[in-house]
Amino acid sequence: MKVSIAHLGPKGTFSDFAAATYAKSRHDLSTQLEAYPTIAQAIRATEKGETDFCVVPVENSIGGGVMITLDTLWELETLQIQQAFTLPVQHALISKADSIEHIQTVYSHPQALAQCRNWLGEHLPNAKLIPTSSTSEPMPIVQKDVSAGAIASSWGARLYDLPILAHPINDYADNHTRFWVLGRQPATAGQYTSMAFSLPTNEPGALLKPLQLFSALNINMSRIESRPTKRLLGEYAFFIDVEANASEPTMRTALELLKMHTGTLKYLGSYNLTEIAEIL
Amino acid sequence: MKVSIAHLGPKGTFSDFAAATYAKSRHDLSTQLEAYPTIAQAIRATEKGETDFCVVPVENSIGGGVMITLDTLWELETLQIQQAFTLPVQHALISKADSIEHIQTVYSHPQALAQCRNWLGEHLPNAKLIPTSSTSEPMPIVQKDVSAGAIASSWGARLYDLPILAHPINDYADNHTRFWVLGRQPATAGQYTSMAFSLPTNEPGALLKPLQLFSALNINMSRIESRPTKRLLGEYAFFIDVEANASEPTMRTALELLKMHTGTLKYLGSYNLTEIAEIL
Repeated sequence: MKVSIAHLGPKGTFSDFAAATYAKSRHDLSTQLEAYPTIAQAIRATEKGETDFCVVPVENSIGGGVMITLDTLWELETLQIQQAFTLPVQHALISKADSIEHIQTVYSHPQALAQCRNWLGEHLPNAKLIPTSSTSEPMPIVQKDVSAGAIASSWGARLYDLPILAHPINDYADNHTRFWVLGRQPATAGQYTSMAFSLPTNEPGALLKPLQLFSALNINMSRIESRPTKRLLGEYAFFIDVEANASEPTMRTALELLKMHTGTLKYLGSYNLTEIAEIL
Repeated sequence: MKVSIAHLGPKGTFSDFAAATYAKSRHDLSTQLEAYPTIAQAIRATEKGETDFCVVPVENSIGGGVMITLDTLWELETLQIQQAFTLPVQHALISKADSIEHIQTVYSHPQALAQCRNWLGEHLPNAKLIPTSSTSEPMPIVQKDVSAGAIASSWGARLYDLPILAHPINDYADNHTRFWVLGRQPATAGQYTSMAFSLPTNEPGALLKPLQLFSALNINMSRIESRPTKRLLGEYAFFIDVEANASEPTMRTALELLKMHTGTLKYLGSYNLTEIAEIL
C-alpha cells in the first residue's frame, strides 16, 4: 500500500520539496506525492481521506504565520499534527538572460518577492515585479523569454533545467520555514504540543487567564499567533505551541483547565520537531 | 499650504478610497492625495517628510493584520497614529461579459480573491484566477477583453466606468478594514493607545508579564498581534492596542512599567477611532 502525501503544487515549489523531504524520511517502501492547487485543498484532501498525510507550511521566520494553514485547521475537526520540521529557505534568481541587468521582468510568489525586496531594489531597480500563484508558475515563461526572471529555489531551477544568475538573494540570511505533517491519527506524545482557542468573552484581555495557567504549571510557551475568527473585527483565535508532551500529567491538567478559560478549544496534537540545517 | 496624504495606489484601490475619505473628513481648504506603489513606500514617504500624512490599512476582519504595515512601523522611529477609522469592504465582480458564465479569467489582488473563494467556487468554478498587485491593475484588461473579470470595489468600477455583474460577492458579510492615519506629530491623547514591543528573553512565555501589568491597572486590551522580528524563528514583536488614553495617569504608569518587561518598546500613539458604517 502506498502512503500518499498531499502538498501545495505544482512541481518545484518549496512545499513540493518539503513533502519530498518528509517522504524520504519515512523510509516506507513506497510513497506517492499528490500536488494540490492550494494549501487549503491539500489539507482538506487529508481530512476527507483522499490522502494519508499532508505537508503544509505553518510559519516562516520572515513572513510570519501562514494564514491559510491556520485558518483551514481552525475550520476542521479531525486532523492532528504528526510531526514538525524546519527547512532553510534560500531564493535564487533564475533566468536565461546573459546578465542580471538584462532582466526586465521578475516573476514570483508575492512572499518570495517580498523576501528579496532589498536585493531587487539594489540590483534590478527598474524591473517590473509580477506576482504569481507559486514560485513554479513562471518557469515556462523564463524558458521562453530571455528578458524574464523568476525567484525560486535552486531545487526548482534544477527541476526545470534553468540557469541560476544569483543565489542566495534573500534579504535576511536566517530564513526558515516550519512545516507540519497533518494526519487523521491521534497525535498524543512528542516534545511540542499545539492548540488553538477563542476566548469566552471576545476580549483579548481574557488571554491573560490561559497564559497564567501555563505559567503556573511551569509550561513554556514557544509561540503565540492570533488570527481573526472571521466573524467580527476584534474576535480572535489564538494558536499556541508549548514545550510539553501532551501525555504528561501537567499538560493533561493544563488541557483540562483550559476549557474553563476558552470558548472553542481545539487540540492540534503533540509531536516532535526536526530541524533540517541544510538542503543538499 | 496643501495637506498631502500618501496611500497605496493606483487610482481606484481600496486604500485610495480610504485616503479620499480621510481627506474629506479633515475639512481642509486643500488636500492632495499621493499614490505610492507599495504600502511601505507610502509610510516611508511620510517618515521622510515628503508627505504630511499617510493612510494605511492595519487590519481586516477576514484577512487579519496587514503585515507590511506592522513590519514597516516596527523598523521606523518617528511616526505616530493620529487617527483610526474602519470602512466596510464589499467586493464586486466587474466585467463587460454578457453574463457571469461567459467570464473565463478573474483578476484581482490575492486577498480579494481569497475573500471571494466560496462565491467563485460556486459561480465560476472553471474560471482561471490570476493574482495582481492591486485591485485596480486588471481594469485596463477588463476594458479590452470581454472574457475577463476583475474583483474590486464598486467605487473602482465607477472610476473606470465598467459594469458590475454581481455585488457583493465576499464570502463573509461582516468584512471591515481598519486604517491608521500616520504622521510625525506626537499623538498623546485619544480613546485608544497602541504600542509594539519585543520580549527581553525571546521566550513568548514572557508575554505574561506585560499582560498582567495591563490587567492589574484595569486597562482593557482590544487587540494583540504577533509578528516575527525577522532575526530568529521564534522571536516576536507584539502589537497591542488598549482602550485607554495615553495622557491618563494609569496609562502613563503602564508605559513606564512596561520598560521593565520588554526588550524594544515602541509607543505608536494615542488616537480616536471612527467607525464608518456605510460607503455611499
